[in-house]
Formats: sequence, C-alpha cells, structure tokens
Amino acid sequence: MQIEAPPVDRQRTPADGERRGLIIVHTGDGKGKSTAAFGLALRAHGRGKAVQIYQFMKVPSARFGEHRVFEQLGVPIEGLGDGFSWKSRDLEASAQLARDGWERAAATIRAGEHFLVVLDEVMYPLRYGWVALEPVLACLRERPSHVHVVLTGRGCPPELVALADTVTEMAKVKHAYDAGVPAQRGIED
Amino acid sequence: MQIEAPPVDRQRTPADGERRGLIIVHTGDGKGKSTAAFGLALRAHGRGKAVQIYQFMKVPSARFGEHRVFEQLGVPIEGLGDGFSWKSRDLEASAQLARDGWERAAATIRAGEHFLVVLDEVMYPLRYGWVALEPVLACLRERPSHVHVVLTGRGCPPELVALADTVTEMAKVKHAYDAGVPAQRGIED
Repeated sequence: MQIEAPPVDRQRTPADGERRGLIIVHTGDGKGKSTAAFGLALRAHGRGKAVQIYQFMKVPSARFGEHRVFEQLGVPIEGLGDGFSWKSRDLEASAQLARDGWERAAATIRAGEHFLVVLDEVMYPLRYGWVALEPVLACLRERPSHVHVVLTGRGCPPELVALADTVTEMAKVKHAYDAGVPAQRGIED
Repeated sequence: MQIEAPPVDRQRTPADGERRGLIIVHTGDGKGKSTAAFGLALRAHGRGKAVQIYQFMKVPSARFGEHRVFEQLGVPIEGLGDGFSWKSRDLEASAQLARDGWERAAATIRAGEHFLVVLDEVMYPLRYGWVALEPVLACLRERPSHVHVVLTGRGCPPELVALADTVTEMAKVKHAYDAGVPAQRGIED
C-alpha cells in the first residue's frame, strides 16, 4: 500500500448513530476509481437522493456509456475539461478551465441541495497545481454536514487523505493493457 | 499490496486490436469492489450491451439503491444467497444454495448471450469451499470469447488472479466505520 492512513482526528469523530455526509476518496493506480464513484451515484439515485457528477478530465460532449445512462436516469453528469491531458497546447487555458470548473463544483457543494456530489478525476488538476488544495479542503470542511462528496484520481494529497472519512486505494495487481489487450468498448468507456 | 501479479501467460495474449471478453477481478479489504462492478454494468448498459448481475451474498428480495435503479433500467440483478454469512444456522443449506447459484451463473456465462456477467461477492462461497474453484476456472476458460466477466470479493484465489486479465486490489487506507461513523443509507446500501 502506497498511502498510509494518518491518525484519526478525534475532533471530527461524531457520536454513534449520527447521520452525516462523508468525504470518500478513490485513489491509486488501478482500475475502478471512477466506476466505483458511478456505482455510489447509482445507489444514491436508487434511494431517491439528488446526485451531481462533475468530471474534471472529460469534455462536456463526452458520450461514454455512463453518460448515456445517467442522462436517461436524470442524473446530471458534466464534463469540466477540454481533454487537456493529451491534446491541449494551451496549458493556461486548461488551468483556467479547471479553476472555473472547481468554482462550479464548490458552489454546488456549498449550496447543500445534493445528497452526493462526485468530483471525478479531481486529483489531476490538484496535482498539476491548476486548482489550489487549500480552498478545496476549506470547501469540504465548511460544507453543509449532510453532503457526501466522492473525489477520485491518482495521487491523492496527504492532506485530503487526512480530511477524508473513507479512502480506498485501487491498486493495480495486473491490467489487460500490459498483456497487449486493447481497451474494450463498453468496458473502458 | 497483498497480492502479487503472476507472470503473464503469453498463450492467452491476443493479437493487437483484438476485441474479446475480459476477466476482471475486484478484490481487497477496501470499499468499491461491488460499486465498481455496478459502474461497469452501467457503462456496458449505456453502450446498449446485455448485462446480467448475480449477487452471491444478497437475498433475492434485496432492495438496495442499486437494485431499484437496475430494475428501472431493465438490467437483471439477482440475489442468489440467503444472507448466510450472518444469519444462517444451516450451513449445508447455504452451501447448496451457493452451488445452485453458481450453476445458474455458469449457464449464463456459457450461453454467450450477455456482453457482461457480474458475479458479485463470488469470492465468499469460493473461500468457504461451498463452490469448488476448478469448475469456476474451467467455465471462465471455456466461455464464449466475447463474454466479459467481473468477479468481486475479498480473498481472490491466486489461480483466479493468474487467469484474470485485469485485477484491482481495493485496499482500505481508512474507513469511516473505524472512526465510529455508522453506515449511511444511500452510500452503503
């Protein structure tokens, strides 16, 4: 395991039985970080809860399998990126887009109208320095207490691990790519 | 990482660009194994593919958030268990139920009518010895080549890791339970 759990901050430990929003992190180099977030979104929606999904590394026009189903279900899923990781030549424009995207996501979290807000692949703009960590931590700390937030992506900063309630490292044991198997439509996208 | 990747079996490595079904394993002690399987099911369904979900540790009447949504979407999700892990007094009846469930799942995999078959929490009956490993491996090896199979649960046997194309270990870094936070409806079920 690459990431060690820091000591639990007892000040944040609620009384037994308390209902409150969780900060949930899916990190690590393996598959399943985003799909597990989608599974949580599916479950919450199935319980009649309001869900919003933001994707920091997807363009607004992305039409993967998950977009088609969430649209059908009426769960908003919104790409905030420009595909910057592999296409963009204008990094400052990409950084600005990520900052604007974060402001949208932060406003949604603070408004408290959603049971669950997913920040898919938000670790990338954090790692690139396009979105500053401290305002993200502040928004999570100060959010309405019933709001669950799921954050995904490799390289979760230790400060975010410390703040989170539940952190899973999706660790790659093996991957089909490494054996020469190409991405399969309907599985990878 | 608790599980080491065994050497790739080059006889199973397909030519570049080949489209074929994958064996995907979600294991480990962390959260996200089943929800990531649900996310894959969602994605495949969004691509118009036929999906079947079997749950070895859920009763047929389970009505968690995911059951409600998959029912709405027309994706069959079927509990094959009797809640044996914590309720049953009659272990032989539970074992027989698991074996019957496996026979149903194996028939679905072999029939080749589905793009994706999810065997959620199948590692438990394997670990308990209620379902024998060798017939499971044989079914996976002999299945129609286009069928993707996702298997979830702690303690994946090394032989299954060896056979699989993609294996992710969901490792617990920290969990809200450990800080005294109870399970939250809409997140845990």
